[in-house]
This record gives sequence, C-alpha cells and structure tokens, in this order.
Amino acid sequence: MISYQDVLDAQKRISPYVLRTPLLRVPALDPILGCEVYIKSEALQFTGSFKLRGATNCMLSLSDEQRRNGVVCGSSGNHAQGVACAAQRLGVSAVIVMPLGSNPVKIEGVKSFGGTVELYGERPSDKEVRVAELVKEGRCEIHPYDNDYVRAGQGTIGLEILEDQPEIDAVVVPVGGGGLISGIATAVKAIRPQAKMIGVEPEGAPRYTESYRQGKLVWLEKTDTIADGTRTDHANANSFELIRQRVDSLATVSDDAIRQAMKLIVSKAKIVAEPSSSMGIGAVLQGKLHFDASQKVCFVISGGNNDLNLLADVIRG
Amino acid sequence: MISYQDVLDAQKRISPYVLRTPLLRVPALDPILGCEVYIKSEALQFTGSFKLRGATNCMLSLSDEQRRNGVVCGSSGNHAQGVACAAQRLGVSAVIVMPLGSNPVKIEGVKSFGGTVELYGERPSDKEVRVAELVKEGRCEIHPYDNDYVRAGQGTIGLEILEDQPEIDAVVVPVGGGGLISGIATAVKAIRPQAKMIGVEPEGAPRYTESYRQGKLVWLEKTDTIADGTRTDHANANSFELIRQRVDSLATVSDDAIRQAMKLIVSKAKIVAEPSSSMGIGAVLQGKLHFDASQKVCFVISGGNNDLNLLADVIRG
Repeated sequence: MISYQDVLDAQKRISPYVLRTPLLRVPALDPILGCEVYIKSEALQFTGSFKLRGATNCMLSLSDEQRRNGVVCGSSGNHAQGVACAAQRLGVSAVIVMPLGSNPVKIEGVKSFGGTVELYGERPSDKEVRVAELVKEGRCEIHPYDNDYVRAGQGTIGLEILEDQPEIDAVVVPVGGGGLISGIATAVKAIRPQAKMIGVEPEGAPRYTESYRQGKLVWLEKTDTIADGTRTDHANANSFELIRQRVDSLATVSDDAIRQAMKLIVSKAKIVAEPSSSMGIGAVLQGKLHFDASQKVCFVISGGNNDLNLLADVIRG
Repeated sequence: MISYQDVLDAQKRISPYVLRTPLLRVPALDPILGCEVYIKSEALQFTGSFKLRGATNCMLSLSDEQRRNGVVCGSSGNHAQGVACAAQRLGVSAVIVMPLGSNPVKIEGVKSFGGTVELYGERPSDKEVRVAELVKEGRCEIHPYDNDYVRAGQGTIGLEILEDQPEIDAVVVPVGGGGLISGIATAVKAIRPQAKMIGVEPEGAPRYTESYRQGKLVWLEKTDTIADGTRTDHANANSFELIRQRVDSLATVSDDAIRQAMKLIVSKAKIVAEPSSSMGIGAVLQGKLHFDASQKVCFVISGGNNDLNLLADVIRG
C-alpha cells in the first residue's frame, strides 16, 4: 500500500522531468454538468498522457545497476510512450513490447522517443511472455499500473489539483488498471479526507465495479468499449485494495455517453480528451453521477492521444 | 493611442469578471516549430474567445447613465458573445445586430447569455446602419476593435503572458481588426521591449500587410479566407498606427497552412483552436516565420469557437 509520503517523494523526484499541468476552470460546462467544473488535463502532459509521471518516478528509483541494465514494458498504449520518453531523458535503454499489428502511429510515437519496439504475439497477453524473457535477461519491468512507484508517480496529479484548488469537493478519475486512481486517492484523502473520490469504468469493462459486487477479484470474459485505455480484463489485487480503502464510489458509463462527452469537451471546454478520459463527464451526462451546483468537481482527463478518425466522427456527431 | 497604464487599469477592472487563462508550455510542438513553444489559449476563456476581456473593460468604463441606456454591437462572431456575456454579468441591456442568415449556433450562443439579437441586412456592412440607429436612440456602441477600452482589455493577455513567463522572446498574434494585437503589443513592449511582436494575417485578407506595403490604409476589394474571425476588409487607422509603432513584423499565411496548424494543435497540443487562431502556428509551418531552438515563443490562440463540421474535416485531413 503506497502512502502519502510516497506520493510526496515522487513529486520531489519527478518535478524536474514532467510538466506541471494546469488545473483548468471551465465555467462553460457548469450549467451542463450541474457543478463548478475543473479539469486537470494530462492530455497537456508531455507524451499526451499521465503515464510519464509514473514511469519517470519508477525509473528514478532504480539502482545504478538496474539503470545500466535497462527497462522493459509491455504496452501498446500511452504507457509505452511514457516509458520511452522517461528512459530517453534519463539515458536508460528501453524495450517496449507491443502486439503484432499495433497501430503504426503508436509504434512511431514510441520510436520518436528513442524506444526500441519489439512486436510480439497477436493477443495482448502474448506480450507478457516476451516481457518475462527480457526480465530474465536482466531488464527491469516498468508495469503499467501494478507497481508502487508507478502508482505514487500518478498520485502527484492529486497533489497538484489540491495545490491549485484546496477546496475541491470531488475528484472524478477514469479507471483502467487502477494505478491512476490509486495514486490520486492516496494524495487527496491524505490532504482533504472530505473530498469524494469517484472512479469511472466503461460499462463494457466493469472490472472493479463487478469485483465490489461479487466481493472478490473478477476476470471478465470479454471487454467491449470505445475507451481503449481501459480494456484490461481483470481487477488487480493491489489496486482493488487501494480503491476499497480510499475511493468513495465507482460508476460505469456507456460508449454513447463517452462519445457525447468527447464532443462536449471539444465544443465547450475547447480541449481534447481521448475516450478513456471522457468517462467522468460521460457518467454525469448519462445521469450516473450527480453533483450540487455549489460543489467544486475536478474531472481528471488522463490523456489526449486520439485516433483522429474516431475523433472526427465523434465531433461530427 | 492606448498606454501601458490603460492596460494595467483594464486588468484591475476586469479581473473579477474574466478567467485568467493559463500559459501552456507545449514541448510536443518544440521540434516541429523549432523553438520553445508556449500557447496562451483564449479558447479556454469564458465564451470561448478573448473578446470577453475588451467588452467587459468597455462596459465597466461606462457612466451610470450609459449603463442604464444599454449597449449595442454589430457582430456575427465572437465579439457578439463577448458583449452579451459581459452585459449579462453587469446587468446591462445588450442588443446584438447580426446579419440575416447568420449561423444559428452563433445566434443561440448570444441568446444563451441573455442578449437580444436583431437580424438586419444581408451584407455584413448593413448591420452598421442598424447599429447607428440604436446609438441615436441612446445605446452605447461597443465596437469590436476600434475602441480604446476594448484594445486595453485585450491587452491584459500580454500582461498575463509576461507574468507567467517573464523571459518570452516573441509573441505571435492573429490580426483581424487589430484590437487584439494593439493591446497585447502595448503591454509587451512596455514590460519587455526586446520581445518581438509579430502579427499574422490570412493571405486572402492582408489588410495591414498591404497597408504597410502601400504606405497608406487599404480597403481590400474582397477577402477570401477560412479564418472567419479575420474577414474585415479594411485596415483601421488607429490600429494601424499602434501596429506601426509597437509591432515588429507582419506575416501572411495560406488557408492550407491554417488547416495543417488546426490539425497539429488538436493532435499534438491537445487543445482546440479556431482557424483565425491557428494562423501563427500555420505561418511557421509554411516557412513564413522562423525561430531559433533557444527562443521562447508564445502563440496567442484567440478563440476556439469552431464550426464542428469544418473541424472534423480538418482533423480527418
């Protein structure tokens, strides 16, 4: 279980290497979402997502020998770019294992940060086999979420939110593997316990909601959602424990509501969010979350690395 | 000629009523634009553009009697919403004269702020006739750019840029009627004279560039540009004088480069800009502006009120 101190340590460690993203006040959304709206946009983070924070904290915590041996991660998404970018800046060799047939744009993204891409296997889980081999050869794995340095790094977002608006009443966070919400909840509940921590999952991949309901960790038979950053098919034990202790509630959101939210974010908030990042606002639009007009609510936008064709479709409606 | 003090006074006056927009550091654009990139996005301003600043400053400077008599403006664009919103907040009656056949979305935008819309005439210039009538009836005109309170209000953007990054080397500003760049240049040149002030116009509406070239104020026979916020067909005498004295250079940009810039801003900077606001970045992409890698360059994004179909087309490329 990470502690508040772990998040403070992470902030000290990573602040020279990551952007301190602004907390945007977005009054244009107030009447639509029924509260005083703040957006913490990690789309504005270098690499276009929050993943740089955790990857940087993890890499800065390695021993000299570990750094010399290099790192590896399995990811076809934002974590891949986060690790590649952090490794480049810190002079660490990084291998990113991606499934065969990965989006060429994402492969190029990783390569642009100097990361070595290995395409391996067709199913997402195949890449774990190759990651395990590279770990045996001496590389250190930077797991996308099940790593306490990664969780603590993502938690620095919570510190920044409360630095910029100490009176926040609720923080709404998208839930994929659970690393982001674990970190943010650890920071927010330590500083302002009365602030509500709310997680949002896709209806088509309700890992933690189902785990709560069944009282045990679930593996979903399939996931089906537009929110490509949250297609993990199982609840992680450590993230689940952190969520149980530090998150007040979970909600699920439909793909339709996610699309509506993406369009709203472009048309009214004038920023760009990827589908996973639009889940919180989508849940309000869908009537799954309710706030009072007096409440200061922060929606965390985890990234803005969109499939541009999908984004164009959504904007056109 | 407005002075630095006018801009400082405007800041004191309007700060309770406008958002202090963040200065975004956007390292993802550095390698593409060849400099250290900052974006001041007034798309994030309430009403989605900078126009709220000037309109608010102007309205706060009216006498009690003038406020009781109400205001009027002729605009089918962002200024219309800026005036309507400022008037609503300050309890002033506002009539917005828009051309017949104006975009229904923009008409609704004005009405949503409680403004009274009068549709009048088919050519943009027809609305000036109706504005003049309403002025005769006692209303005070809030001109979109040829008004010193409006210019000083827009200039508060320059103060904020330098508060957030005192070492800025250049500020690139879109030029429509010239109110925005007049105000910003007044602030920037007073605080940091060595910072370059650069204006950008569309190739299809080069009012000030042509006025420079010909050594006199020009009226263009026609304007033809995707940048709908900058379709004014003539150079304004007062703005031209301010630009001559306080702006270092002007560049023009093609519609193609504006489209490229709009797409780049969504895909890499993860924010939304309207065509007029994308001109500065477009001019760099087109090779019309050049910077050194060490230079801190601020691109002012004046607004984000897009035609969503056009935006979708541009994103799809």
